[in-house]
Amino acid sequence: MASSLHPDLSTTTPEEVVDLVGAASVAAGPWAATSRADRARALGAVADALDAEADPLVGLARTETQLPAVRLRGELKRTTFQLRLFGEVLTEGSYLDVRIDHADPDWPMGAPRPDLRSRLEPLGPVVVFAASNFPFAFSVAGGDTASALAAGCPVLLKVHPGHPQLSVATGQVVTEALRAAGAPDGVFALLVGDEAGRAALVDLRVKGGAFTGSLTGGRALFDLATGRPDPVPFFGELGSVNPVFVTRTADARRAATIADGFLGSVTMGAGQFCTKPGVLLVPEGSTIPGELAAAQPPAAAPMLNDRIRDGYLATLDDLRRHADVSLLAEAENDQTADDAPGLTLLQTDVAALLADLNGMFRECFGPTGLVVTYRDDADLLALAEAIDGQLTATIQGEEGDEVVPELLRRLARRAGRVLWNAWPTGVSVTHAQSHGGPYPATTAPASTSVGTAAIGRFLRPVAYQGFPQSLLPDELTDRPRADLPRRVDGQV
Amino acid sequence: MASSLHPDLSTTTPEEVVDLVGAASVAAGPWAATSRADRARALGAVADALDAEADPLVGLARTETQLPAVRLRGELKRTTFQLRLFGEVLTEGSYLDVRIDHADPDWPMGAPRPDLRSRLEPLGPVVVFAASNFPFAFSVAGGDTASALAAGCPVLLKVHPGHPQLSVATGQVVTEALRAAGAPDGVFALLVGDEAGRAALVDLRVKGGAFTGSLTGGRALFDLATGRPDPVPFFGELGSVNPVFVTRTADARRAATIADGFLGSVTMGAGQFCTKPGVLLVPEGSTIPGELAAAQPPAAAPMLNDRIRDGYLATLDDLRRHADVSLLAEAENDQTADDAPGLTLLQTDVAALLADLNGMFRECFGPTGLVVTYRDDADLLALAEAIDGQLTATIQGEEGDEVVPELLRRLARRAGRVLWNAWPTGVSVTHAQSHGGPYPATTAPASTSVGTAAIGRFLRPVAYQGFPQSLLPDELTDRPRADLPRRVDGQV
Repeated sequence: MASSLHPDLSTTTPEEVVDLVGAASVAAGPWAATSRADRARALGAVADALDAEADPLVGLARTETQLPAVRLRGELKRTTFQLRLFGEVLTEGSYLDVRIDHADPDWPMGAPRPDLRSRLEPLGPVVVFAASNFPFAFSVAGGDTASALAAGCPVLLKVHPGHPQLSVATGQVVTEALRAAGAPDGVFALLVGDEAGRAALVDLRVKGGAFTGSLTGGRALFDLATGRPDPVPFFGELGSVNPVFVTRTADARRAATIADGFLGSVTMGAGQFCTKPGVLLVPEGSTIPGELAAAQPPAAAPMLNDRIRDGYLATLDDLRRHADVSLLAEAENDQTADDAPGLTLLQTDVAALLADLNGMFRECFGPTGLVVTYRDDADLLALAEAIDGQLTATIQGEEGDEVVPELLRRLARRAGRVLWNAWPTGVSVTHAQSHGGPYPATTAPASTSVGTAAIGRFLRPVAYQGFPQSLLPDELTDRPRADLPRRVDGQV
Repeated sequence: MASSLHPDLSTTTPEEVVDLVGAASVAAGPWAATSRADRARALGAVADALDAEADPLVGLARTETQLPAVRLRGELKRTTFQLRLFGEVLTEGSYLDVRIDHADPDWPMGAPRPDLRSRLEPLGPVVVFAASNFPFAFSVAGGDTASALAAGCPVLLKVHPGHPQLSVATGQVVTEALRAAGAPDGVFALLVGDEAGRAALVDLRVKGGAFTGSLTGGRALFDLATGRPDPVPFFGELGSVNPVFVTRTADARRAATIADGFLGSVTMGAGQFCTKPGVLLVPEGSTIPGELAAAQPPAAAPMLNDRIRDGYLATLDDLRRHADVSLLAEAENDQTADDAPGLTLLQTDVAALLADLNGMFRECFGPTGLVVTYRDDADLLALAEAIDGQLTATIQGEEGDEVVPELLRRLARRAGRVLWNAWPTGVSVTHAQSHGGPYPATTAPASTSVGTAAIGRFLRPVAYQGFPQSLLPDELTDRPRADLPRRVDGQV
């Protein structure tokens, strides 16, 4: 491990990209053919190796991200949990969507049904672009890597420049653990430098891409992937405002609690979460704005790096200068901690917001939120209809609220996840989780990048027609098996 | 029905497109909220209405497509079967991928798991571009329409100009049946004219597209869909060569049978199937070329229309002029039937083919095939590695053939369906069917446009966090139910 504390940070050259993609391409067949049990063991080995190296990795992460150790240790735990969870997904096997249709001469379609059997198979090598704000969970060994490797796809991991040393160190741990577990050479590699990432994404041997980051960066990569002579799937998670709708009843009953929860969520991680609640809708006359203005926000925390802080301050400045936006509260910066910006809360009303959605309803990546007053339920419904794709949308309400059913229906059409009396930050890794949404939340609305269903992004169906048992993939044979859910002649 | 025999064929104006998309957008909520049972009933009603109007519809189809009545009646049967099959998919419900994770304070991720429940929900209004070669099964009421309506998406159907009267007549039957079944107004509408189709596809209220047709046309629409300010999914099925690999042993044992099967498949529907086997690999010294040259091919059949015939003859001419391609057999044109082109078989060898894949390994939509001789198994493997995405790839082999396992693995990476001692034409509508493949077979390698899994193209996951039972969609509540497969706390 000593070497990983002084890692090689040199930019990957064009020639190296060609070689690494070539190695990934060669590894694709053997890795796809590796049994699910062996792939699960390899993911577990990566998790174990990361846990064993927790101290030096967290140490590196602290120096590069300014994040506190307790947060980083928690995130690493989440990361290794995620790797092991995808191992369980492999073992359970239903992700393969195995379907077996035996030949049927009387198939009512009007022609005999041949023997047809299908399962999902890996796309091939993919490029994963790491994010800055979760140096473990959405970076080198994060959810995209875990789900792509689980699916059977080699991964070319484009390092995020926000934590390069941690990335290279993590990459060494991953590579060594995979090798020791018997994975083929080339199944995982790091790419350093934007140009290396782009070159890999347009290499014809690469079959897909995944990204978590900014709207601009993600859209540029999506355009590259879809503009190839042979377009490939690109799963970009770009950005989200994550509006919160407080009903009049909830406001009357729980204003202080809601203000408190909003403050905690909007400042969590210095506001640098893609699920940060950026807009809070409260009824006219609500005491919530007053509560927020009077509250003592959590201590200002340093942002991930200067580039992100500068970008945040520029967008915030833009919003503050908006003619219809006024200042609600401004906490002091923390002068002791690298000029960590304090919480800034802005306010406007829903009529102004609807009149300039593009100008005001936008992601501002940092410790800020826009509090919007509305007059009546129709305002809430109008805004829910007007907004574009979101990762999350939240209702703070009461069960009898008349507006809620229709508001919920509208928000479910806009967001990948809807929440009730909860806060969107903190994305649990579970079976039912959905972290996605229509554009611009993602470039692929039918997918999630968190939770066990994330593996589906890296798979495609292949049907086998008329093959003898001896030539079929193991999962598709008639051999009775209790260990794998299958749909046989239409019945699960 | 009388009126549908003199349908309105006028081009949809830009203003009409705006109105139709608007109506589809208004219908999206109510149609998504329509129960699965009611949507299944509506699909069944459409199938019943089409069956009831079979005579006039087949009559119209005959005048516009030159296809024989028996084929058209079979295709209509397949079409109504497909509509009813998607009704069964709705009733069975597993397509919803319901996942319920109860709150778990001890979730090993390191943070408590909230109550999270997810299911797949419809994308919203979609534009479906009809194909020319299946005037029923891939047209107005075809597989894309059936699966999108089943998913809960309103459909704007761009009419194929190859059979406009049939399209408008079919559209009337569909619209009236849906209305009578209680579906919301606007859930289905026809668009006439290329510009109308394009305008709808880039309308921000449209959330996806599906297409079956040419590489050029499909790619242009894919570029439109992905180039929108807010890109949307586009499922284009563009084209395929569908190579057939005959092993040396199979050639030695069954040359005559294979030649016969190939002739039947390559001339079926006058070669106008996207799964037509366009390239046949045979070992040097095979008697198959001789059998093919000597055989009496089926009578030449008229092509769908003059545009397709002219396109076919131009591509064929191009291939025939290729320096490394020679003529193997040329049947006479049928001068009595609108100059129906006879079967033309060309030949080359694998070295020449590999030297100019772009020039020779290409779809030629009509009654022609390229017979390619190879020297050894390595040639087969090299070609399987070199080709691009295919809808199908076929092995004619024997179980003990040494080359088969590796050949199969390579072909499965290139094609959506692999076949063994069968012919790719005739795509059965079943649970396990996969009609798709990497580009250029499709623009969406992770999907199928035929079979029950086709519904998945029009769905996206939505997670509900922390909602009380009274506000959850019915399928996500804790109410015990035997009628719907669900994954609860990770267990199906």
